[in-house]
Amino acid sequence: MTLRWTPHATDGQARAGMLHTAHGEVPTPVFMPVGTAGTVKGMTADGVRATGARMVLGNTYHLMLRPGAERVARLGGLHALMDWRGPILTDSGGFQVMSLAGLRKMDEDGVTFRSHVDGSKHRLTPERSIEIQHLLGADVTMCFDECTPFPATHDEAAKSMRLSMRWAARSRAAFVPREGHGLFGIVQGSTYEELRAESVAALSAIGFEGYAIGGLAVGEGQEAMFRVLDFTAPMLPADRPRYLMGVGMPADLLGAVRRGVDMFDCVIPTRSGRMGRAYTSRGALNLRNARHAEDASPLDPACACPACRSHSRAYIHHLIKCDEMLGPILLTWHNIQYYQDLMGRMRAAILEGRFEAEAAAIEADWNTPA
Amino acid sequence: MTLRWTPHATDGQARAGMLHTAHGEVPTPVFMPVGTAGTVKGMTADGVRATGARMVLGNTYHLMLRPGAERVARLGGLHALMDWRGPILTDSGGFQVMSLAGLRKMDEDGVTFRSHVDGSKHRLTPERSIEIQHLLGADVTMCFDECTPFPATHDEAAKSMRLSMRWAARSRAAFVPREGHGLFGIVQGSTYEELRAESVAALSAIGFEGYAIGGLAVGEGQEAMFRVLDFTAPMLPADRPRYLMGVGMPADLLGAVRRGVDMFDCVIPTRSGRMGRAYTSRGALNLRNARHAEDASPLDPACACPACRSHSRAYIHHLIKCDEMLGPILLTWHNIQYYQDLMGRMRAAILEGRFEAEAAAIEADWNTPA
Repeated sequence: MTLRWTPHATDGQARAGMLHTAHGEVPTPVFMPVGTAGTVKGMTADGVRATGARMVLGNTYHLMLRPGAERVARLGGLHALMDWRGPILTDSGGFQVMSLAGLRKMDEDGVTFRSHVDGSKHRLTPERSIEIQHLLGADVTMCFDECTPFPATHDEAAKSMRLSMRWAARSRAAFVPREGHGLFGIVQGSTYEELRAESVAALSAIGFEGYAIGGLAVGEGQEAMFRVLDFTAPMLPADRPRYLMGVGMPADLLGAVRRGVDMFDCVIPTRSGRMGRAYTSRGALNLRNARHAEDASPLDPACACPACRSHSRAYIHHLIKCDEMLGPILLTWHNIQYYQDLMGRMRAAILEGRFEAEAAAIEADWNTPA
Repeated sequence: MTLRWTPHATDGQARAGMLHTAHGEVPTPVFMPVGTAGTVKGMTADGVRATGARMVLGNTYHLMLRPGAERVARLGGLHALMDWRGPILTDSGGFQVMSLAGLRKMDEDGVTFRSHVDGSKHRLTPERSIEIQHLLGADVTMCFDECTPFPATHDEAAKSMRLSMRWAARSRAAFVPREGHGLFGIVQGSTYEELRAESVAALSAIGFEGYAIGGLAVGEGQEAMFRVLDFTAPMLPADRPRYLMGVGMPADLLGAVRRGVDMFDCVIPTRSGRMGRAYTSRGALNLRNARHAEDASPLDPACACPACRSHSRAYIHHLIKCDEMLGPILLTWHNIQYYQDLMGRMRAAILEGRFEAEAAAIEADWNTPA
């Protein structure tokens, strides 16, 4: 049987469930740390596991360039290469390739682009993207699509979405069904409700193991994003997992879970960690700030990660000021831990039918700095 | 009682023993990973502990500038700050300050220098160096000395050594004896046997809990270093630990243990790790090299570190090529693990009276690439 998702509870629009994959079960809602080039930046696989993370994301674009999809396959696949024993979702490469302004040329069949690493020429089509994701060994494979830029006129958004729908059908045809593996369709249509509806209808007609809501977190702002979720999520099949790609800040996760999203990925916790930023149960902290120089308290008194268990804000401030690798290492670990803890807290609340009360408590804490 | 060292066995000149400190016992011979600015670069304290390392080094020069010795003391000392529960040896700052060519001015009383970080003016004297090391909470404090540059004429070396001996007496006077803490004298005298003898006599007259052999690993080469050890080590009191500062490569450690040295520190395993180099039981590897791109074997089949247990050379090559933090993290971990394993292997052999046979086996393996 292909990859399944079992609903466990709903509370308002919020859903708790279980994703069943070839590499184990994943409680949802779930946040997947991003392992762009086969590594969650700054963390060992053991460290990622220790945060409670059960599933990570890998990037087709980066991995096809280095070390190369065929090479990953020869080395036993992405799971073995990065020592990640849980499930892996791979993106299609579409988002990154479309971002290569001036370095890519799109046609009906696919996209030709130049590598940001060495300028070499490459081509991605729906068929090749799916093939690469198979070579990597993805548990969840994503359709190759065009992430419609924001803002887009209705015509631009319609044209872009319809191309993605044709590519979705080709992705489905190219996908080789295997036990515990699945292909997700990606809903496009920018901020236009009727285009989102058209996209959902097109994808549902093809049929996928899960549905991603694409083209968000691209500059439209949280309010517009939530508005799109408000009308798009209810259009999606209730028995399939819903994935909001590239989202987001803790408040974005909370608002999207509230609106019925089950899966997330984002570079924010890792990238912010490298830049000296911590997300905590009491809001965000910039550890570069001199006010932390003699602060003996932990980043987050509610957190059990190694940074919070063993070190002070003063120490992490010192590490960041000295450009010591351990600063980003500890902040990344903490941020991933915080994201996992946040998702776990939301899931428990959904199961117990008290999501809104928990959400209110979480938000109140964010506004009460420790 | 101040810090003690108990001999357990000798085999030729090689010695095995136990260092008894305020923060626990340390089997010798021992390699201390370098935690320059309060962190072993690229590793968590848990990671360092997991390699079997029992003692680390901290740098007075770096820590006095950032975060500042008084600040470290206010934050509970260096052990608490970096979450290192074992003993810590701090250097005196002398070596780094003397290296600041053009930025420092030395007189009989001490050295005035400018910070490499912000150009601010600072002064180190024997008394201030010892005070800083007390503020940091060092288990082993080092005398403030001048590391005689290499090469030096007999006159230059004598003058420099005699200044260090006067500073050693002042360091001893400034040191506050505490249970399990000790002060080490540093033998100077460059490559001149009679100057080394004069230095040992001067230090022995003062009396220290341990003796470092300074002014080596500064460009004289392995042969000259071993020659100095050959005549200097036997001059030192047999009941005190001997520390060779800033050494070295695996073959240097083996040769120095053979000559009666008990303690070592060096940035080589950490710095080399950041540069893509691995030390293994089968010799050194440069992971940047394309020949590792598809090599599914571990760095070192004889090693149980996370890099060797979970990953291939191909993966680490990929990480290094992509400038991923995990590359240096894994290589640093491995190198520290290898250094600990090497010391443990030598210690076990000394205890069993088969040091030379073990040394020959180790050297044969280095010359048999895996």
